[in-house]
Amino acid sequence: MFKKLSAVGYALERLLDLCPPVNEREKIPIEEACGRVLASDVLSPEDLPSFNRAAMDGYAVRSGETRGASQSSPAQITEYVRVRTGAALPEGFDAVVMLEDSFLRGDVLEVTAELTPYRNVSRIGEDLRAGDVVLCREHRLRPPDLALLGAVGIDDVEVFTRPRVSIIMTGDELVPRSSVPAPGEAREINSLMIYSYVELWGGEPHLSGVIPDERDAIKHAIKRCLGSDLILISGGTSVGERDYAPGVLEDMGELMVHGVRLSPGRPTALGSVSGKPVMCLPGYPVAALASLYLLVRPAIKRLAHLSDDAPRRDARLSRKIPSRPGYITFARVSLRNGIAEPVMISGAGILSSVARADGFVLVPEDLEGLDEGEQVEVHIFE
Amino acid sequence: MFKKLSAVGYALERLLDLCPPVNEREKIPIEEACGRVLASDVLSPEDLPSFNRAAMDGYAVRSGETRGASQSSPAQITEYVRVRTGAALPEGFDAVVMLEDSFLRGDVLEVTAELTPYRNVSRIGEDLRAGDVVLCREHRLRPPDLALLGAVGIDDVEVFTRPRVSIIMTGDELVPRSSVPAPGEAREINSLMIYSYVELWGGEPHLSGVIPDERDAIKHAIKRCLGSDLILISGGTSVGERDYAPGVLEDMGELMVHGVRLSPGRPTALGSVSGKPVMCLPGYPVAALASLYLLVRPAIKRLAHLSDDAPRRDARLSRKIPSRPGYITFARVSLRNGIAEPVMISGAGILSSVARADGFVLVPEDLEGLDEGEQVEVHIFE
Repeated sequence: MFKKLSAVGYALERLLDLCPPVNEREKIPIEEACGRVLASDVLSPEDLPSFNRAAMDGYAVRSGETRGASQSSPAQITEYVRVRTGAALPEGFDAVVMLEDSFLRGDVLEVTAELTPYRNVSRIGEDLRAGDVVLCREHRLRPPDLALLGAVGIDDVEVFTRPRVSIIMTGDELVPRSSVPAPGEAREINSLMIYSYVELWGGEPHLSGVIPDERDAIKHAIKRCLGSDLILISGGTSVGERDYAPGVLEDMGELMVHGVRLSPGRPTALGSVSGKPVMCLPGYPVAALASLYLLVRPAIKRLAHLSDDAPRRDARLSRKIPSRPGYITFARVSLRNGIAEPVMISGAGILSSVARADGFVLVPEDLEGLDEGEQVEVHIFE
Repeated sequence: MFKKLSAVGYALERLLDLCPPVNEREKIPIEEACGRVLASDVLSPEDLPSFNRAAMDGYAVRSGETRGASQSSPAQITEYVRVRTGAALPEGFDAVVMLEDSFLRGDVLEVTAELTPYRNVSRIGEDLRAGDVVLCREHRLRPPDLALLGAVGIDDVEVFTRPRVSIIMTGDELVPRSSVPAPGEAREINSLMIYSYVELWGGEPHLSGVIPDERDAIKHAIKRCLGSDLILISGGTSVGERDYAPGVLEDMGELMVHGVRLSPGRPTALGSVSGKPVMCLPGYPVAALASLYLLVRPAIKRLAHLSDDAPRRDARLSRKIPSRPGYITFARVSLRNGIAEPVMISGAGILSSVARADGFVLVPEDLEGLDEGEQVEVHIFE
């Protein structure tokens, strides 16, 4: 049995303490920067636009000469220049009259509307001035941001490096996915799920291979990964006789949490070795998923300077979700037309329950369940 | 002037008619299948688990022999086998007693709890039976789905191909991003934004280069792209004298829409050539962005068999957004603590307004604006 179960909130707090936003940075071309986070303010090296620019097809004119012009008494203008959208406004002119508001009568341009200065003109620096902050440190780059950077001639940006997340798989019973498991064996599949989520959440996953359930093997694997920002160990985390990972953490550094009040997901552990966070994830895939979503996701987001923008939908429960008081329950639900249908209440090993689910609902630890018809927030599986 | 402006809804409907979900498929390894959509049902080739499996560390026993067992009168069992979590249940046994509920007294196992058959056992096929549908056609693969496929020994899946989206840039004034634009020139930046969004939304973007504002050049470029599922032409879409793209569509096929009641975004056009949809996007970046979000995004999602799951947040407007009745207004807003602050109401060229925005609010065409304090739905920029 676990000596002392921790609340999920406590485990998360301790984990986040060990996961400060990464401070390393790298310079990358803007074409590759979508989704990355700026490590410094970006200043514009030039004005945008860099010249007064016609915003319409029409004629460049002096706005003063259109004073009082109207449909019934057009201004008669003799000095004008035909311009196309995007063209530089010729020297000495300060407005563009649209084709619809002008009429060429011989050499004379009749203008039927009064123009204010810089009418239909994009002025120098109207979008950005040289020296202006284009985008701030901590900004996450989206496609239009890349276009803006490109517009002022910026090729490279300094971004924070992605947090390195090492993934260690333990388990004597694990065989490669390509094998047919004999009785007592199981295909190693959790790394596929963990790897994909780490990448999706903004981390840089590193698979550290499958190691046997041996203290020394685990110790060595952790040592090899101490250059990472977060170390994940899958399996060997419970209180069985082969569950060495938590004990190894105790030996190598500190074991802060062993067992959390999360269902499924109880055999989750957290420690630190040389100041680096080490999370032990349950071997049962659904329990691992709960632990990933409730603990690993916020940790990676914090390391990566990303906001915790999990997709959520409001819904109404089609039927009761029972739960164990004192535990946060990770209940899989399918979602249709605003109705959340619980898929499977228990079964940490039942991965097919996740395939049929669109997301999960959390039952708080102080409740004995959620009632039919209750309004809930569904976290959508990414 | 545009001959006839179309409603955004009309343009979208015509566009979607031309964008049926793609039917081509490809076989890919599951490691590369995250986010892809299954083109056929996947059946399980085997039972999962493939043997009766101990779900706990403990002793395999015959449940019948524990009948009536309790703390005060434990069952005395002489035939049992020590098992670890994940081990195969030995032949002839049907339950596992947890270590906590058992005590070894010499060779006799005392069991202090009554066990039902298959207690603490994951039965053969409990998760999936051979022949069961693991995941259905049209399912979008998420990390736990990959693990489930791996668990039953599936290496490859058949998915729909990503829709091919060709991107043609037109504009005599455009210079490469690496150049310093002379007066009258502009750096070509829209392709960067369009490319990134096409990729983000599930399409496979192909840049078809920058071509001059010439009918024949546009015609040839479109011809070269007719193998695509969607063709995007950026620039040359308005009613100026160099705006050839809509006329070319009329010549080559059908021009269904030229000018939409979208602000910014009016100079958007839609046609079809040899049954393929061709969208003309405004050259002004913010107008292009509006057109991308309101038209191109749903088109790509439909082609890609993906649901239109745009991230949204409810918010309250910090101040009025004026708008032009008859037009849908694409208003950029920043978002903080549930308050949406309009960033910039007009200015199709002002890309920095997007950098400062977190998303956009749509003002419906039948309104003259939205009032301060009004509840709105903010579409978050991806």
